[in-house]
Amino acid sequence: MEKTEPQLLTESRDYAFSQDGDDSLLLDCGQTLHDVSLRYECAGTLNADRSNAILITHALSGDAHCCGRHSAGDPKPGWWDEMIGPGKYIDTNCYFVVCSNVIGGCSGSTGPRSINPATGRRYNMDFPVITIADMVRAQHRLMEFLGIDCWLAVVGGSMGGMQVLEWSVMYPNEVRGAVPIATTAQLSSQSIAFDWVGREAIQYDVNWQNGDYEDKIPDRGLSTARMLAHITYLSDESMAQKFGRNLQDSEEYGFNFSRDFAVESYLEHQGRRFVERFDANSYCFITRAMDYFDMADRAGGDLAAALAPATADFLIVSFSSDWLFPTSQSKDIANALLKNQRNVSFCEIESSYGHDAFLLEVDALGTMIRGFLDNQSKEGAK
Amino acid sequence: MEKTEPQLLTESRDYAFSQDGDDSLLLDCGQTLHDVSLRYECAGTLNADRSNAILITHALSGDAHCCGRHSAGDPKPGWWDEMIGPGKYIDTNCYFVVCSNVIGGCSGSTGPRSINPATGRRYNMDFPVITIADMVRAQHRLMEFLGIDCWLAVVGGSMGGMQVLEWSVMYPNEVRGAVPIATTAQLSSQSIAFDWVGREAIQYDVNWQNGDYEDKIPDRGLSTARMLAHITYLSDESMAQKFGRNLQDSEEYGFNFSRDFAVESYLEHQGRRFVERFDANSYCFITRAMDYFDMADRAGGDLAAALAPATADFLIVSFSSDWLFPTSQSKDIANALLKNQRNVSFCEIESSYGHDAFLLEVDALGTMIRGFLDNQSKEGAK
Repeated sequence: MEKTEPQLLTESRDYAFSQDGDDSLLLDCGQTLHDVSLRYECAGTLNADRSNAILITHALSGDAHCCGRHSAGDPKPGWWDEMIGPGKYIDTNCYFVVCSNVIGGCSGSTGPRSINPATGRRYNMDFPVITIADMVRAQHRLMEFLGIDCWLAVVGGSMGGMQVLEWSVMYPNEVRGAVPIATTAQLSSQSIAFDWVGREAIQYDVNWQNGDYEDKIPDRGLSTARMLAHITYLSDESMAQKFGRNLQDSEEYGFNFSRDFAVESYLEHQGRRFVERFDANSYCFITRAMDYFDMADRAGGDLAAALAPATADFLIVSFSSDWLFPTSQSKDIANALLKNQRNVSFCEIESSYGHDAFLLEVDALGTMIRGFLDNQSKEGAK
Repeated sequence: MEKTEPQLLTESRDYAFSQDGDDSLLLDCGQTLHDVSLRYECAGTLNADRSNAILITHALSGDAHCCGRHSAGDPKPGWWDEMIGPGKYIDTNCYFVVCSNVIGGCSGSTGPRSINPATGRRYNMDFPVITIADMVRAQHRLMEFLGIDCWLAVVGGSMGGMQVLEWSVMYPNEVRGAVPIATTAQLSSQSIAFDWVGREAIQYDVNWQNGDYEDKIPDRGLSTARMLAHITYLSDESMAQKFGRNLQDSEEYGFNFSRDFAVESYLEHQGRRFVERFDANSYCFITRAMDYFDMADRAGGDLAAALAPATADFLIVSFSSDWLFPTSQSKDIANALLKNQRNVSFCEIESSYGHDAFLLEVDALGTMIRGFLDNQSKEGAK
């Protein structure tokens, strides 16, 4: 692809629900969250008939900054900048792209570190346990605020894909295309188990203090949780290729417990970087939302019945070496939709990158998404 | 199998190297360990020509108590009691079975919680970093002490299988049969990564105190490490079958962070039970020994060349759903041995139990081991 397009500049905005007169959000747990606010970013231009809007839904540790840079000198673009931008696979010259940080997050939207209006102090563990559906409800308020009647597509990977599925069922008339990537219709027992261990590591950290930390953050617990999760994002194969049994700084074993292997050094680096940008309480709340995610549950375990309200066209993508959300789980979604006689394209992309492939296999994935969006646009223009 | 055999009673014994005049063990790291002692157990009777001795090598959290009960009322038999005993697959009416707790362990053999003769205090993290080969060297001293010239077979699963491989190469003339089960010739990058995260959890525990804990043990860190490891011992499939998304005490989500799912409750139970019987420092040293395990390393990465000294007959067994030490890794061992024109039987047992299958698929595995031992005995009698 030619890279002659001008640099895309994006900016964060905050949408306070109170701007529309109702600051509240009723949650699945039965509680009502007040003073709700969403951090979001937009790129591209909404067309006259408001038919070119695409919602990007982010994964566990993602945020609203999906593309572009915040200033000309900004060294770090948004997390999916290779996918989204002028002339890119999700082309901001054609589409109006919206992405918001999920509630429960720690990147500007209302979450456990926000101030509880009832107490004047941070929610921390008093924050209500949210669900993926709650995240989508909040995004729907933003959609109304932006004056968008229908998304051309909702596109997201991993936890973003869970939001795509919820969107397709909760607001079927407002979603024309749905692109769930490297995701599942329900979190497996194994994934719930990994989440549990990660949260245990956080909540065992002496600095965690039942969530009421300020200066001394539970960095070591959060780092451990991240390192563990990171292993599940890679594949045995990609780890063998990238690190194998390579030693970090020496030709010989150190016969100690410091970072001896390259993979240990890599994990430690990932853990350390993560605690600089992510909050431990948010990590707990967002993984819990994923644990509770089970599309089929609303129909007594019948996924096809649960997905029956969805009318969108679907593009479902999985990756061959993804063992966190394996291809079989994407096929379950595709088969349930086919049972409902929906338009479904399904593709497994060959990749050794494991779950991370949804962020790394940009060309293979992007080509498919571009084709799908082209078709959706043409269908809409008919 | 008929269960008319009398109950097998076994007892723990200690072999202090000093009984043979040399209390020391030279280790791979270059250090010498003094005042070394091994806890071991025997079952069955050594025959007149001392040709019926079988060494059982245990896995990470195992110990010398592989079969029988310590007293008539003992509620808990040895860890492989279904496999080993009078009339069982490894029949103590025919064979003399020996099993010793590895050095570095916490069940009676010299390990990090032993007293360092140089200081009069526990070694803790001053204990030398040991290797699988060091464990085998110590077992060889026990073999000499017991007056055994050659093992009819060395049999072990997981880390026990690593010891089997070392035995076959380090003491080829003293091993007639080798049975490495659910194991690997080298720890993979992914496994090293899991071990790293487990040790991080232990060493981050405030009670760990750089290994110098006494009354307040790092139970939460060790529990987290165990829970994580436990996930790798199961399979996605077995977890789905055993727990699925079942809730523990309720029909509905608790919308909190307590044990909500059955799998969370199970893991917590496993973690809690483990800290009652295992030591955190031992966990660090033994996992490090596994990290360093790489049979091919001694021959520049050529596994066949590394295994060339081995003259034993091999029975290699893997389990279809074991993703910790997958079948491909057992096949690598088999292929390397076949390249050396050794007698190799290889079998993958179909099982959904994951790595744990080596302890659970007793009948399928036992039938194979019994046949192999029968053949080895006949070969020896020729």
